Amino acid sequence: MGMTMTQKILAAHAGLDSVCAGQLIEADLDLVLGNDITSPVAIHEMEKMKTDGVFHKDKIALVLDHFVPNKDIKSAEHCKCVREFACKHEITNYFDVGQMGIEHALLPEQGLTVAGDVIIGADSHTCTYGALGAFSTGVGSTDMAAGMATGKAWFKVPAAIKVELTGAPSEWVSGKDVILHLIGMIGVDGALYKSLEFTGEGVANLTMDDRFTIANMAIEAGAKNGIFPVDELAETYMKEHSKRPYQIYEADADAEYEQEITIDLNTLKSTVAFPHLPENTKTIDEVGDITIDQVVIGSCTNGRIDDLRCAAEILKGKKVAKGLRVIIIPATQKIYLQAMEEGLLKTFIEAGAVVSTPTCGPCLGGYMGILAAGEKCVSTTNRNFVGRMGHVDSEIYLASPAVAAASAVTGKISGPDTL
Amino acid sequence: MGMTMTQKILAAHAGLDSVCAGQLIEADLDLVLGNDITSPVAIHEMEKMKTDGVFHKDKIALVLDHFVPNKDIKSAEHCKCVREFACKHEITNYFDVGQMGIEHALLPEQGLTVAGDVIIGADSHTCTYGALGAFSTGVGSTDMAAGMATGKAWFKVPAAIKVELTGAPSEWVSGKDVILHLIGMIGVDGALYKSLEFTGEGVANLTMDDRFTIANMAIEAGAKNGIFPVDELAETYMKEHSKRPYQIYEADADAEYEQEITIDLNTLKSTVAFPHLPENTKTIDEVGDITIDQVVIGSCTNGRIDDLRCAAEILKGKKVAKGLRVIIIPATQKIYLQAMEEGLLKTFIEAGAVVSTPTCGPCLGGYMGILAAGEKCVSTTNRNFVGRMGHVDSEIYLASPAVAAASAVTGKISGPDTL
Repeated sequence: MGMTMTQKILAAHAGLDSVCAGQLIEADLDLVLGNDITSPVAIHEMEKMKTDGVFHKDKIALVLDHFVPNKDIKSAEHCKCVREFACKHEITNYFDVGQMGIEHALLPEQGLTVAGDVIIGADSHTCTYGALGAFSTGVGSTDMAAGMATGKAWFKVPAAIKVELTGAPSEWVSGKDVILHLIGMIGVDGALYKSLEFTGEGVANLTMDDRFTIANMAIEAGAKNGIFPVDELAETYMKEHSKRPYQIYEADADAEYEQEITIDLNTLKSTVAFPHLPENTKTIDEVGDITIDQVVIGSCTNGRIDDLRCAAEILKGKKVAKGLRVIIIPATQKIYLQAMEEGLLKTFIEAGAVVSTPTCGPCLGGYMGILAAGEKCVSTTNRNFVGRMGHVDSEIYLASPAVAAASAVTGKISGPDTL
Repeated sequence: MGMTMTQKILAAHAGLDSVCAGQLIEADLDLVLGNDITSPVAIHEMEKMKTDGVFHKDKIALVLDHFVPNKDIKSAEHCKCVREFACKHEITNYFDVGQMGIEHALLPEQGLTVAGDVIIGADSHTCTYGALGAFSTGVGSTDMAAGMATGKAWFKVPAAIKVELTGAPSEWVSGKDVILHLIGMIGVDGALYKSLEFTGEGVANLTMDDRFTIANMAIEAGAKNGIFPVDELAETYMKEHSKRPYQIYEADADAEYEQEITIDLNTLKSTVAFPHLPENTKTIDEVGDITIDQVVIGSCTNGRIDDLRCAAEILKGKKVAKGLRVIIIPATQKIYLQAMEEGLLKTFIEAGAVVSTPTCGPCLGGYMGILAAGEKCVSTTNRNFVGRMGHVDSEIYLASPAVAAASAVTGKISGPDTL
């Protein structure tokens, strides 16, 4: 029996000729990631292990991004713990305030994740790097600790779902709509512990930023990982951003998939996930009349330059609706600078939005736009669970940057075509 | 006996020919100010008064600035309270996320404070508008409530201290150094319940932003208010920013001052207030070797365009010291936009600083740069009390934007001349 792309990467990193779904393996890690919330726990766990140090100072990435610049004393103490650990172990890829960005936007930009890698990160959305043809997945802080110490991790090889993409998305339809549509089809547990293997001629019609968004939210369908084939676009991206060698793995023709799904990008519409699950999707023509209090454009899901360009195109020369707060959060310092140089930030400010320094902030209820009881927010983030962005009686509607920007103008959930 | 400038303004607003220090008067108010921390308390107090409404919908300013964009559920609920009040009473000068800035930078910029005004605000640093020749002072939330309902407030007419300024400051010496020097001389209670009446030919050598900074920190010497004579520069500022008529009051030649102080601007040096009081001042050549963890440039004291220009001039082409976090906070959306257009924000980002959306944030320990135990921060803010910016074991060193920027480069408290 042949192997999927994910299985091939895992086999190679386990020193095995082949693996099959359900098999327990130990794989070598190319990168172990932690942030300001999860790293302190991992560091304390590692201290208990009484190891001499980290397995490789270049293969650990520590990114302060969630509650940074420090939102309170507790987050300041957490950051201090990570900072001291990074200093003690001379961690090469330590990113503090000023060099940093949201981890899953930052690491590919810094060239730390490439095709063929096995990456674990103590953050659910570590699956993002599948966009570059890597196996990457979120783990708990204890696994992160073991990974930092040994450079290895145990995995149960995942079974797979093949997602065949055909056609090309129309204007204003983007990666976010693809993944929300998929989660709407299969549910938040539709890919539980499986790999979502994207494939098909439609992949070529998705930008890298589209693919990052799609892989990023694989976890929202319960997937172990999401992964894309490595085409010329992905190779160009890696050559531009990384000096690391990469390895392209392709699924065998006779690879086994538990399920096969086809999504025709031609027919996709802007899609919105209603409270309180990403699977509660409606197309933009089905949403009805929902007045909102806040719009957030940012996060590891949709804070990249394509996302900001799209939002700026819609907001250019327009004004934010009266009574609405609109918060734009470029995902990294580099994206911030680029958006500034392209005039996007000027467009946002002139429209009446505010621009935040890079941070996860409101996405997980940290700061920078927390909701009061009864408030509704259209957000380009990845989760709309009860209380995720503030009060348990607030509501989050997940959408693309295009829908978020259009909604910013109208004050209601809207598609850009209605402007 | 003649009257001081402050006394003349108060007499006119009380409908009296003259007043003297210690007299209790009731004065008409030109503006009543509240923010997202103090307004909810005032609003609840006003509800208890069973009034029909506010005294004048154009003469109340409500600015959401302290913990905005909302840092947590509590601040979100506070903002919601203010928002609903502003909507119900059709408050003209209500500033929410997107239109807002830090209140004391925003109101003069929006033309809401002019010479001759009597202004109360439920915020200590309401004394800022004295830079324009207004009487303005901080009050409690209950006084704010009464002010919003009646348009009047009781005052005990303050005695005065005359501060004669002579000469001109040298390069890198600014308003912050003037006020820190003064507070160092007279102490944090040196002007308790008195007006600090700045005068002398040295005034002409201070920019408007210098004067705002000086008047802003009058409260840090315990003063009821700080006030500047209205010269051509102040008139030009008001004509550019405001459509409101202004009234110039001048102190009588025989006005009584309890104390007279002369400061020769020629001899002033960059001045730093050591923990944990603004009166603990040292000149830059006396500070010694103090390694820092963070720099904050912003606040109602020093987040204006002159401040950012000065910091950018020093940071241009340089890099933030390793291990240091540098947080720049333009005080208003307009200042943010101007700083962006002048290339200042680019300079900050390229140097390795982060740029925040306007907020009071870290100044009062809100968010956006809270300190852990043992950490030291050079800050252009106004108070360095124990725990003001985070942990009780952290330390704040108050300084000018020039010293803050130079310290950002060296990682130690430094003057720009040492670079």
